[in-house]
Amino acid sequence: MANPVLPSSGVLSPLGLDAVRLSPGFWGDRVALNREVTIAHCQEWEEREGWIGNFRGERPRRGREFSDSEIYKLLEAMAWADHPGLPALAEIVAGAQEGDGYLNTRWTGSRYTDLEWGHELYCYGHLIQAGVARLRTHGEDTLTRVAVRAADHVCRRFMEGTQTCGHPVIEMALVELYRATGTERYLEMARRFVERRGLPALADIPFGRAYYQDDQPVRQAQVFRGHVVRALYLASGVVDVAVETGDEELLKAVEAQWERTVARRTHLTGGMGSRHADESFGEDYELPPDRAYNETCASIASVMLSHRLLLATGDVRYADLAERTLYNMLATGVALDGRSFFYANPLQVRVPAVPLDGVNHAPEGGLRSPWFDVACCPNNIARTLASLPAYVATATADGIQIHHPTPAEIRHGELAVKVETGYPWDGAVTVRALTGGRGRIALRVPAWAKGARLTHRGEVREVAPGYAVADGPWRTGDELRLELPMAPRWTFPDRRVDALRGSAAVERGPLVYCAESVADEPPLGDLAARVAPPVEHHVDGVVELEVAASLGGGSEPPGWPYGHEPDGRPSGADAGLRLVPYHRWGNRGPATMRVWLPVGAGE
Amino acid sequence: MANPVLPSSGVLSPLGLDAVRLSPGFWGDRVALNREVTIAHCQEWEEREGWIGNFRGERPRRGREFSDSEIYKLLEAMAWADHPGLPALAEIVAGAQEGDGYLNTRWTGSRYTDLEWGHELYCYGHLIQAGVARLRTHGEDTLTRVAVRAADHVCRRFMEGTQTCGHPVIEMALVELYRATGTERYLEMARRFVERRGLPALADIPFGRAYYQDDQPVRQAQVFRGHVVRALYLASGVVDVAVETGDEELLKAVEAQWERTVARRTHLTGGMGSRHADESFGEDYELPPDRAYNETCASIASVMLSHRLLLATGDVRYADLAERTLYNMLATGVALDGRSFFYANPLQVRVPAVPLDGVNHAPEGGLRSPWFDVACCPNNIARTLASLPAYVATATADGIQIHHPTPAEIRHGELAVKVETGYPWDGAVTVRALTGGRGRIALRVPAWAKGARLTHRGEVREVAPGYAVADGPWRTGDELRLELPMAPRWTFPDRRVDALRGSAAVERGPLVYCAESVADEPPLGDLAARVAPPVEHHVDGVVELEVAASLGGGSEPPGWPYGHEPDGRPSGADAGLRLVPYHRWGNRGPATMRVWLPVGAGE
Repeated sequence: MANPVLPSSGVLSPLGLDAVRLSPGFWGDRVALNREVTIAHCQEWEEREGWIGNFRGERPRRGREFSDSEIYKLLEAMAWADHPGLPALAEIVAGAQEGDGYLNTRWTGSRYTDLEWGHELYCYGHLIQAGVARLRTHGEDTLTRVAVRAADHVCRRFMEGTQTCGHPVIEMALVELYRATGTERYLEMARRFVERRGLPALADIPFGRAYYQDDQPVRQAQVFRGHVVRALYLASGVVDVAVETGDEELLKAVEAQWERTVARRTHLTGGMGSRHADESFGEDYELPPDRAYNETCASIASVMLSHRLLLATGDVRYADLAERTLYNMLATGVALDGRSFFYANPLQVRVPAVPLDGVNHAPEGGLRSPWFDVACCPNNIARTLASLPAYVATATADGIQIHHPTPAEIRHGELAVKVETGYPWDGAVTVRALTGGRGRIALRVPAWAKGARLTHRGEVREVAPGYAVADGPWRTGDELRLELPMAPRWTFPDRRVDALRGSAAVERGPLVYCAESVADEPPLGDLAARVAPPVEHHVDGVVELEVAASLGGGSEPPGWPYGHEPDGRPSGADAGLRLVPYHRWGNRGPATMRVWLPVGAGE
Repeated sequence: MANPVLPSSGVLSPLGLDAVRLSPGFWGDRVALNREVTIAHCQEWEEREGWIGNFRGERPRRGREFSDSEIYKLLEAMAWADHPGLPALAEIVAGAQEGDGYLNTRWTGSRYTDLEWGHELYCYGHLIQAGVARLRTHGEDTLTRVAVRAADHVCRRFMEGTQTCGHPVIEMALVELYRATGTERYLEMARRFVERRGLPALADIPFGRAYYQDDQPVRQAQVFRGHVVRALYLASGVVDVAVETGDEELLKAVEAQWERTVARRTHLTGGMGSRHADESFGEDYELPPDRAYNETCASIASVMLSHRLLLATGDVRYADLAERTLYNMLATGVALDGRSFFYANPLQVRVPAVPLDGVNHAPEGGLRSPWFDVACCPNNIARTLASLPAYVATATADGIQIHHPTPAEIRHGELAVKVETGYPWDGAVTVRALTGGRGRIALRVPAWAKGARLTHRGEVREVAPGYAVADGPWRTGDELRLELPMAPRWTFPDRRVDALRGSAAVERGPLVYCAESVADEPPLGDLAARVAPPVEHHVDGVVELEVAASLGGGSEPPGWPYGHEPDGRPSGADAGLRLVPYHRWGNRGPATMRVWLPVGAGE
């Protein structure tokens, strides 16, 4: 089962890369581009930066203290993609492993002297995830042996005591290795890492222990907090531990934290993270569009967590958030050419960024860059796209569930179906049986899809958000057709979201739209949109939208930006304002952008 | 002339501590508290933290690389306050000075190896300012000799070449030492430091060179940018250089930068700084209330700059901004007991801070702390309050100008007057002649004071914002009376300020008001205020205000904070919401707070 997450129990069972094959389409194209371009791009940069050379013993060592993890994420991507470069790279890594399994190019000689910031267990976590991927797609080899030796070393060194790592990921990695090998000590080690957190296990730091979720025990927390990637990697591992140990209380705790976080700390795009200073969530309802951090890796972590919760509970809301995050964050994180990346993903950009051909030292969000000093995002995108088919569908004893409609062939048990759709541009999804067989087919109907219709055996019926189901038996060529309503929707923020008051956004299907202005034409700094049905334009296979807005770019602002009369709409006449899918912005050069459009007083 | 800024030319001449004596009142009380409590508080903490011990050679050295500067700021405060502790502390400092004038407890032995972050010239700047203060209040002594030797060392080391310091302040310090001693090389050194900036003079850093204003030459910049304290200290030094060298172009450049910054990058309180990550301005119209950084030191720097521009040009707008900043930022920075301080000064606090008896490691803005790892703000407050009388009034050949009405006696030439007022609580300001004499008296009428009235020799006339003037001759006991309208004012943001859309604030006189909620009663997270005249309550000499607001604290927020209908007002019935002056918030324990009140749709 070629699958990054394989729980031994749960409401839904995942279908892996061997069961789901993507065809050309929104995701199939991206997965192919990732395999053909992005993986090689990452490897080139990791050689150029010297991070692979670190494993060869080249000195001085180069890169940040966690740079080893980038090579491991790349190896995981290569494993899922069955990339021919894997064995040679794995040999280089293996050459740096010490006799007792210790492996880290930064801390060899001063092991575990800085658990708060050293990232040694974090690096192992990614190594082990790569090893699991290889084990499940290929079987035992150098990479899997290196990973197992590292995991054994971790268990020997950390099973007793109170220590853990400043950056979670080891937890979910160890559980997955337990699932892949049956070796119970990996699960026990993960469980202990989870339970130690918040006792506390780590030193206090200027950001506070909440930064690395060490402010309180996992099962007592009410909401995700602190550094977003840390928080969501930890929560993913907690779900894994809860599922494997049958700890319902622990699972419920994470569900409640997820629920509050989604209700109060999540941007419209599914992005999480409102602060640059410590890459953290911020407080409830602190959701600034301009300073939204929304790290690409955080969105990947969010998908990983939602996927685990979906498998454990079968609750459609987890798949809904995953869809929002995949289409508006993961798809945004990488350019259409597969060679440049966003680190931060704000919902408003006031000043066009300056293009960078080389390394971007600052994780701002104005323009995609080929590489970063901290290059977690490119490698994380690579491994996630390489394993993306595993997130599309699941199975139960009575059939399959298709959570993300995209062109694909899905095989499970007696069922073999072909999914055909122009989604997310078009709302029609056809599932055609490739063979005869029994089993129920469930198609997710997103929460936004009020009035969806399902056609089955000539009968059309309206289906509510949740899952639209149809029972077999199926004959070869039988069709099931779901029609999702794709009319653009105006979306308004809850009144508690201070930073968005008086503005509205446009969504269509699973996509969030934005106004993008290359060369500041039209200027987006002073406008008021009309809340009226947007006009659709089909441009090169992409649906763009047009709304009416009055623009005030020409008026000179006052000398003091506060006055004693409410400020009205800009005086310009209404003009058409073009909106593009958020995930496509920033592909036409430096630009300003805004998702949330001021709508003026009274609207 | 006991004055921190003594330009050799300019439209207005400053009146120093020898000419302006504050009486009990808003500022007089604070200046006294500062002299009696805050200065000793700072010295105690600097001993406790080991920063004074560093000068005694105690090892290991303690504190950050710029901790020497805190002792110098304290020495400057002591000089203005004629504090008896100064000579002993100056001897300790003198003991660490090397034979050639070099003086730094961090970098001795590795001089000038990190001009970007080392802060050596920054420390000299504060030392020299302390020396100038001592020279002007006392005359030559150990401290002044140490400062002059350091300045001479700087001139020898840096006169040739292209180097400067990552943190400005040396520029204005050297100009002031030139003014105090007549030694021209200090002015020339300052001029060169100014002109080198932006060529560039410093290395690129992840924050970008704009962080330390090295992205472009000073005279080409359009706006203040980057780290706020750095930007405003630099601009102050640039004004000083421009005034002393007669460089009109340079002065105009700073005026234009100030103008754009005030119009687009300044919070209602006069605070500057919208980003925590790099303590920087942020972009035009990026003015978030919750994440406003508004460092206390930045407000002090803003007052220093506005004062210099006021002296140079006589333009009342500089005094207006200084007043706003003094009442809403400087007065906010220190608690009513003089022993705890704000570092950041946000305009909204959603979650009450946890009280800290000791050092606050994080410069957040929820509750004043006794001390910080980076303790610039307490010492900066101490030196500013100690020299505050020097900001109150100025003189010209034909009389005096009172920019900040507060109880005081002011003497200049033939004029000796007593200012009596309950300002900022009361709008009546009386100026009474203590002796007979000639000369024009000008009283500033703030920009907000539409309909102010001046009574002179029994005649009442309306006076427009700007300066209300009355000519002598004056006989002993003659009175001039200004009445400023003190009705509370609703204030609305310019529509370009995205973070404030749909909200309004209340001001009264020079004071910005805020809702403060101790123990979250009432909850401030979900409210809508009515824009109607606030009711005044006089409480222990302070004017509090009451507005009507509907509160929604009880309603359960939705599971996803975005919906397809505009969100209305909270459903709660109107209740009275008490507002307190912003500068008084946070004196009653952990609290939530907001300056900008949502006003609901349509208002």
